Amino acid sequence: MEYTIRPAREEDMPAVHRLITELAIFEKEPNAVEVTVEKLKEDGFGPEPRFRCFVADSGMGVDGMALVYPRYSTWKGPALHLEDLIVTEPARGSGLGSALLTEVIRHARDTGAKRVSWEVLDWNEPAIRFYKSRGARILRDWDVVQLDERGIDHYLQHYAGL
Amino acid sequence: MEYTIRPAREEDMPAVHRLITELAIFEKEPNAVEVTVEKLKEDGFGPEPRFRCFVADSGMGVDGMALVYPRYSTWKGPALHLEDLIVTEPARGSGLGSALLTEVIRHARDTGAKRVSWEVLDWNEPAIRFYKSRGARILRDWDVVQLDERGIDHYLQHYAGL
Repeated sequence: MEYTIRPAREEDMPAVHRLITELAIFEKEPNAVEVTVEKLKEDGFGPEPRFRCFVADSGMGVDGMALVYPRYSTWKGPALHLEDLIVTEPARGSGLGSALLTEVIRHARDTGAKRVSWEVLDWNEPAIRFYKSRGARILRDWDVVQLDERGIDHYLQHYAGL
Repeated sequence: MEYTIRPAREEDMPAVHRLITELAIFEKEPNAVEVTVEKLKEDGFGPEPRFRCFVADSGMGVDGMALVYPRYSTWKGPALHLEDLIVTEPARGSGLGSALLTEVIRHARDTGAKRVSWEVLDWNEPAIRFYKSRGARILRDWDVVQLDERGIDHYLQHYAGL
């Protein structure tokens, strides 16, 4: 299988959105995707892009993507976060995910990031094995905490008198 | 105890750095802090700040801080990440941590964030109880993955022929 890894363009966003939805189904949260194609275009390609995206392009279409943005570690300094790395089901096992990850790590080095971080579901053993084989550490004792939009409103109503 | 929650200024960075080091000791990683006071000034107060910081100021000094930056959820859209929320040992239990968290949530709402995220050590039960009481979800099945600076170099040498 031949493909090119390249920075995503605005017109790739419908394909990127399809991949995001495909992953949400895999992660058993099919209705969680509230972001639209228009929102991805606006947030990724405006005057102050909120993320950077790479796609795997086979010439026939986009079969995978990696979406990243900067973070900041108070221990290490500037870092890069990999929010999603998604390969469409039929293209798995072709080395495409690995090629996308390599592009992300290269981008991290080129932009002076001291760390690349991402998150993985603890039951996704094939992914965990792959990441470990590439030298990543799995921090099993750290949990992700989230306050969603309703939680934000609720919090402010109850604890900030707003 | 009286204090003001306000945006950090460049001259607060020595105090912020002391708090970062204090937390690293609590988390049993006293040597992990590579960031310097100068680096915090540069990264937080340059033309393109990499983070935003709030401090709790008692008039006698800075007793707590919260450090945040934007993230991007491919499900929800723009999000805010709370990297650190630190209260100095003697000031704990005074409501200062809670006031800093409220300021962060307010900042999230004001900047249109659809989610606030952070990470917690799974043995830090008092913190987990506090976050849950404020409506946050603890995602126990997600693990944090990190590739550090040496890992980045090693990866690129072995998997990208660089």
